[in-house]
Amino acid sequence: MQHNLAHAKALAPNSKTWSVVKANGYGHTLKGVFSGLSGTDGFALLDIGHAAFLREYGWKSPILLLEGIFSKDDLDECLSLQLDVVVHSLKQVQWIENWLEESSGPQQDAAFKRIQIWLKLNSGMNRLGLTSKAYVEAFHRLHVAGFAVNHLTHFANADDVNVLPTVDAQVEMFNAVTQGLSGQKSLANSAAILWHRFTLEDWCRPGIMLYGASPTGRYKDIEHAQLKPAMLLRSEIIGLQNLRKGDQVGYGGRFVAQRDTQIAVIACGYADGYPRHAPDGAPVWVASGDNLSQGGICPIAGRVSMDMITVDVTDLPSAKIGSPVELWGDLLPIDDVAEASGTVGYELMCALAQRVPINIVS
Amino acid sequence: MQHNLAHAKALAPNSKTWSVVKANGYGHTLKGVFSGLSGTDGFALLDIGHAAFLREYGWKSPILLLEGIFSKDDLDECLSLQLDVVVHSLKQVQWIENWLEESSGPQQDAAFKRIQIWLKLNSGMNRLGLTSKAYVEAFHRLHVAGFAVNHLTHFANADDVNVLPTVDAQVEMFNAVTQGLSGQKSLANSAAILWHRFTLEDWCRPGIMLYGASPTGRYKDIEHAQLKPAMLLRSEIIGLQNLRKGDQVGYGGRFVAQRDTQIAVIACGYADGYPRHAPDGAPVWVASGDNLSQGGICPIAGRVSMDMITVDVTDLPSAKIGSPVELWGDLLPIDDVAEASGTVGYELMCALAQRVPINIVS
Repeated sequence: MQHNLAHAKALAPNSKTWSVVKANGYGHTLKGVFSGLSGTDGFALLDIGHAAFLREYGWKSPILLLEGIFSKDDLDECLSLQLDVVVHSLKQVQWIENWLEESSGPQQDAAFKRIQIWLKLNSGMNRLGLTSKAYVEAFHRLHVAGFAVNHLTHFANADDVNVLPTVDAQVEMFNAVTQGLSGQKSLANSAAILWHRFTLEDWCRPGIMLYGASPTGRYKDIEHAQLKPAMLLRSEIIGLQNLRKGDQVGYGGRFVAQRDTQIAVIACGYADGYPRHAPDGAPVWVASGDNLSQGGICPIAGRVSMDMITVDVTDLPSAKIGSPVELWGDLLPIDDVAEASGTVGYELMCALAQRVPINIVS
Repeated sequence: MQHNLAHAKALAPNSKTWSVVKANGYGHTLKGVFSGLSGTDGFALLDIGHAAFLREYGWKSPILLLEGIFSKDDLDECLSLQLDVVVHSLKQVQWIENWLEESSGPQQDAAFKRIQIWLKLNSGMNRLGLTSKAYVEAFHRLHVAGFAVNHLTHFANADDVNVLPTVDAQVEMFNAVTQGLSGQKSLANSAAILWHRFTLEDWCRPGIMLYGASPTGRYKDIEHAQLKPAMLLRSEIIGLQNLRKGDQVGYGGRFVAQRDTQIAVIACGYADGYPRHAPDGAPVWVASGDNLSQGGICPIAGRVSMDMITVDVTDLPSAKIGSPVELWGDLLPIDDVAEASGTVGYELMCALAQRVPINIVS
């Protein structure tokens, strides 16, 4: 993560960096990201409880609540934790105004100093965000109330081309709406940092690239980008089965041996976060003996179970019970596993289950 | 869970019940299953740490380790926790023999009393389990060593017909191999309890049915089986967007409005465990006001994000920010969501993320 953050900062040398650590640091744990991303300018996340954790851990620089408040009462904690807060709806503006009305003068003064607002424009993604008209209204209401108000939007397709709305169209709308309004700006996610450098502005918001996976879901798109995988998911072989041609493996008998086949059973299943959608042929790195780096890619054979996967190790005859296995990491990009399973690295990282023992290496 | 367990026991009145609570009780937490399934005869799980948790919680009846030991040293804990232990490979037999050799006489005597062995036969699933020949060898080695040895196998296709290997074929092989050997028998999973009643034997092993979902993944297959959903996943609307015909939603612009459309943004995404594979049209129960039970099914519109989903609420015009939503539960079977997303209820339950606040209701 340190390496990837340095790389993101090198690509955006004139911008500050919100490191996006929502979803428990994309599955890398808050302790993990605190250790790996301490060089960031700020952390961006969703959950006030997680913000409190980072403050308790000693983080004194900015923290941004990416979805803002979920009720008026959240503002008390935003004040005490000194958070930057996204505002994406007029409902949230109203909560802030009501909260101010109920506050004393000193509390109000503290609020204006300690809470920064980041208005979120819906510039075409049509998920969270204010329409142009509501945006200008919200800006003036919060500005008049006394807050520093900044500007933010999110790209729908920075990881692709020729898909509407384009980055250009979203930037154009963002500039048109925010023109003449005071405040800092933040637009760029990982894909924009890598491929749309004119969007960097005051603060960029790298997420997936910090964890060493591709915004597009395709490893080849970041193969030359000098990113390193942050998560290594490893296990070992706990069983071997010798099949004759025609034998089947696992639930539903999806894999049928086309030759005499050796199957290795690996202690990792969908209840660990391994994708149940992984088809026969999806890649798993298996050691040929005791040394993980000596081995090769073996194909999944049979449906992923809750606690196990089965792979064809016929071409790796020295694999044995106890041989180590990498599900994704240094030897096998997470993007390759995700792509084979019809998803993206983001989902696999976030899906890492609580029962998987985690070892944070700094 | 109480209701579902009672139903499983009614279907198998002459069998004891291993309630399968691996994978953190299929996502329902160990505290949850301890509270809901205290009427069971035994718990079956994978992780010795989880067995220790149940013992500390006060569970004095049997606990079965479904994958047995992962090293020789695990046997010390099996002894102190008084666990039933599956043996699925000759490697495990060897670990047990080696451990006995290193044990004192009193420890050996205690082991024979406190640890019961469940040999696992590979009767055609070709995942974990001993071949016929190795099975008989293992039986005699462990029997001679002094252990009570019992018999277990697992069905590959009890939830289907006309898929090889069939339940009949697996039972036939199991009976042939275990004939004349002493010990109790356990074969039936949920699907077999529901649909293959001749396999019940001494101990059955219900799993998914205890949580109120279908072994087949299709809700209609259990619609008349008197099972109740154990997990209710609920959230609320945090944003609304009014789209014009032709506007797009979310990453990749997958949903394109075919009419003027109202989109509700719901605080639940794949980092909560909602399936990222859910396509446009997958069902979400949305309240039309403040009361969850007054509402209807609305279709997913746009790709599932890490922290949000977007649904088309055009036909539910009174839905507003704050309206409650059920992702699955009483009003919307988890099987329906899973089926729409190309997976099964098992996976969705297990994927429930750590960040989702859990409220155990007894």
